[in-house]
Amino acid sequence: MIYITRREQFNAAHRLFREEWSDDKNREVFGKCSNPNWHGHNYELFVTVNGDINPDTGYLIDLKHLKEIIRVYVINKLDHKNVNLDVDFMQGKMASTEVLATEIYRQLEVPLREQGVNLHKIQLFETENNYAEYYGD
Amino acid sequence: MIYITRREQFNAAHRLFREEWSDDKNREVFGKCSNPNWHGHNYELFVTVNGDINPDTGYLIDLKHLKEIIRVYVINKLDHKNVNLDVDFMQGKMASTEVLATEIYRQLEVPLREQGVNLHKIQLFETENNYAEYYGD
Amino acid sequence: MIYITRREQFNAAHRLFREEWSDDKNREVFGKCSNPNWHGHNYELFVTVNGDINPDTGYLIDLKHLKEIIRVYVINKLDHKNVNLDVDFMQGKMASTEVLATEIYRQLEVPLREQGVNLHKIQLFETENNYAEYYGD
Amino acid sequence: MIYITRREQFNAAHRLFREEWSDDKNREVFGKCSNPNWHGHNYELFVTVNGDINPDTGYLIDLKHLKEIIRVYVINKLDHKNVNLDVDFMQGKMASTEVLATEIYRQLEVPLREQGVNLHKIQLFETENNYAEYYGD
Amino acid sequence: MIYITRREQFNAAHRLFREEWSDDKNREVFGKCSNPNWHGHNYELFVTVNGDINPDTGYLIDLKHLKEIIRVYVINKLDHKNVNLDVDFMQGKMASTEVLATEIYRQLEVPLREQGVNLHKIQLFETENNYAEYYGD
Amino acid sequence: MIYITRREQFNAAHRLFREEWSDDKNREVFGKCSNPNWHGHNYELFVTVNGDINPDTGYLIDLKHLKEIIRVYVINKLDHKNVNLDVDFMQGKMASTEVLATEIYRQLEVPLREQGVNLHKIQLFETENNYAEYYGD
Repeated sequence: MIYITRREQFNAAHRLFREEWSDDKNREVFGKCSNPNWHGHNYELFVTVNGDINPDTGYLIDLKHLKEIIRVYVINKLDHKNVNLDVDFMQGKMASTEVLATEIYRQLEVPLREQGVNLHKIQLFETENNYAEYYGD
Repeated sequence: MIYITRREQFNAAHRLFREEWSDDKNREVFGKCSNPNWHGHNYELFVTVNGDINPDTGYLIDLKHLKEIIRVYVINKLDHKNVNLDVDFMQGKMASTEVLATEIYRQLEVPLREQGVNLHKIQLFETENNYAEYYGD
Repeated sequence: MIYITRREQFNAAHRLFREEWSDDKNREVFGKCSNPNWHGHNYELFVTVNGDINPDTGYLIDLKHLKEIIRVYVINKLDHKNVNLDVDFMQGKMASTEVLATEIYRQLEVPLREQGVNLHKIQLFETENNYAEYYGD
Repeated sequence: MIYITRREQFNAAHRLFREEWSDDKNREVFGKCSNPNWHGHNYELFVTVNGDINPDTGYLIDLKHLKEIIRVYVINKLDHKNVNLDVDFMQGKMASTEVLATEIYRQLEVPLREQGVNLHKIQLFETENNYAEYYGD
Repeated sequence: MIYITRREQFNAAHRLFREEWSDDKNREVFGKCSNPNWHGHNYELFVTVNGDINPDTGYLIDLKHLKEIIRVYVINKLDHKNVNLDVDFMQGKMASTEVLATEIYRQLEVPLREQGVNLHKIQLFETENNYAEYYGD
Repeated sequence: MIYITRREQFNAAHRLFREEWSDDKNREVFGKCSNPNWHGHNYELFVTVNGDINPDTGYLIDLKHLKEIIRVYVINKLDHKNVNLDVDFMQGKMASTEVLATEIYRQLEVPLREQGVNLHKIQLFETENNYAEYYGD
């Protein structure tokens, strides 16, 4: 069993808030992260897959394919976007690093399985000081 | 003459566009950077000052003071904000890295001179792949 | 189950030696790390906690709280200190990266549990070339 | 149980291809990675070992010894070399990151066990965007 | 006057040697860098241009154009190539970081001037420990 | 004219204080940096030299020689040492990053000139957030 990880990046705006809460309650719970005019990040995404090495190629998976799947299902939907407003798979969800990591996992799980590899982990850096990791259920 | 540089960071949303241009024109010129719903970055700011070492302390300037000035005049105004909407010194200006770097320079020049040091350079990273530098006029 | 990691840093002096050993024996075993006049590091600490996402906030834990706990129980005791002389929880212990990582784990385990999260891992970088990891007993 | 990781680096040339395949087939499968004139990388290697802390030293293993073993069995054979042509333990094998990581594991497993530690993981970065991890069979 | 820097990367094989010297002489002068079977690096290239900000766009130069010029004139010629054998502008030249940096400068100077910006500096990292800088003649 | 930079590192203890000042005065001026039991850093040193490329080798200077000079005159004196107590060229001087950078410059200027290169700049990082630069008088 070998593990391969691919790094990708996206630059996005977001905001932490609950519509059903007052501005004051949102500010109390989420602080500056609830700024109604949004803020943003250079998110760094590490996608780890595992499986057996293909003896013909020495590859677990051709990284061009891995990169293409991540771009189609994740990066193109998030890069230079607003996580709360523009991203289909984040509609009605909190735009926290935790939730974003789990939803990115759900986007990639099936397409990667169809390529013959198992999605092991999503690691998502919001800043150089914070990251979330999700291994599926 | 010694040079001292302090790194600070801020996470902000922004958008590149001209109000007097149509959406199509903005998209043509600024591409995905003109997304009407904003996007964002972890900006990395390096402030370089120069001058003579104080023989009593071995310091050019106490870094606590340098950090405090950068926070009051720049970081507190930009961190977790929208560069286009929330920042007094960016009103009516393009929110490009180039313009932001020059305006940060203008914010810091006088307060640093009042502390006895000369502002030498502003270096502003928008991503790990792009940065602007401004040395004043 | 989601994992969240917070990075913190501290700058400290330390020395590797056993009081009951001669200077020669200490030099033989610990080499330059036993310098009687100390040396030091910019330690980089990654604290990983896990648990369930709070559906109200999208958080595992508010990072402000996580940061505050790490500061009170670890950083304030270690930053700009001497690991051998100044740190209550390191008294009578070897100031190696391995031991320091395990003792930081013990400092944080209970306070984090009281916040409703499980301490999963302490990762401690002594330099960019060496780090220790501890997952508890 | 404590884990210690040591980072080492080597700069090497390599090429992905199968001798029994035509140039066209190699180009189709491996793309620019099959360039007959080679290309190369600054490989970054992280070797993680685990075991119990020695109560006398506070060490899992003296990092000088860990470093020496990695140099003798891996770095000296790979640094400033051609992975396909110059490296004894890669003869007849695909020079992919996956295969290289597993073969480095095999080089280090026994010598590290003889030092009283268990080899836990090989992590090998080919670029800042790709890495392989291998934990043994 | 504003300065903008763009980072690009390329992975290449190379070798330091003089054809008119014996293998022994080459090994004496260039050491392991003269390995006849080549070695390689992940080169990191920083291209700095300067000029005036365009008041319409807030740009010095559209980074998409800067990136495209660097790719056409430099990256496409060097990435996954052999610096000594495959690169037109390096024929008959030493493949040292110093020479490579000056030749990259010469490749980019005119195309960038035609875009209305001045090429200020080429900074080329061979490893994280070594880089060359060239500002033109 | 070409510029070459070499990165080296050293781990050292230090303290900011003036012997002729009271403990209170030292604490007032230098804060936690005056801890009588010392603290420490992983210092990162970048030494930049300039001159003409040697047409025989393509080198400005053989990096093995540059590295050796930095080790003999600087790293061996500072690594795993106490900057205030153990370092001959820092006796009686403030152990600030500014002063240390200027004194390292003075250590290297003559030996490098004797190798036929000009010392252009010393850049010294105390942490990832602070660095000093010195270009000579």
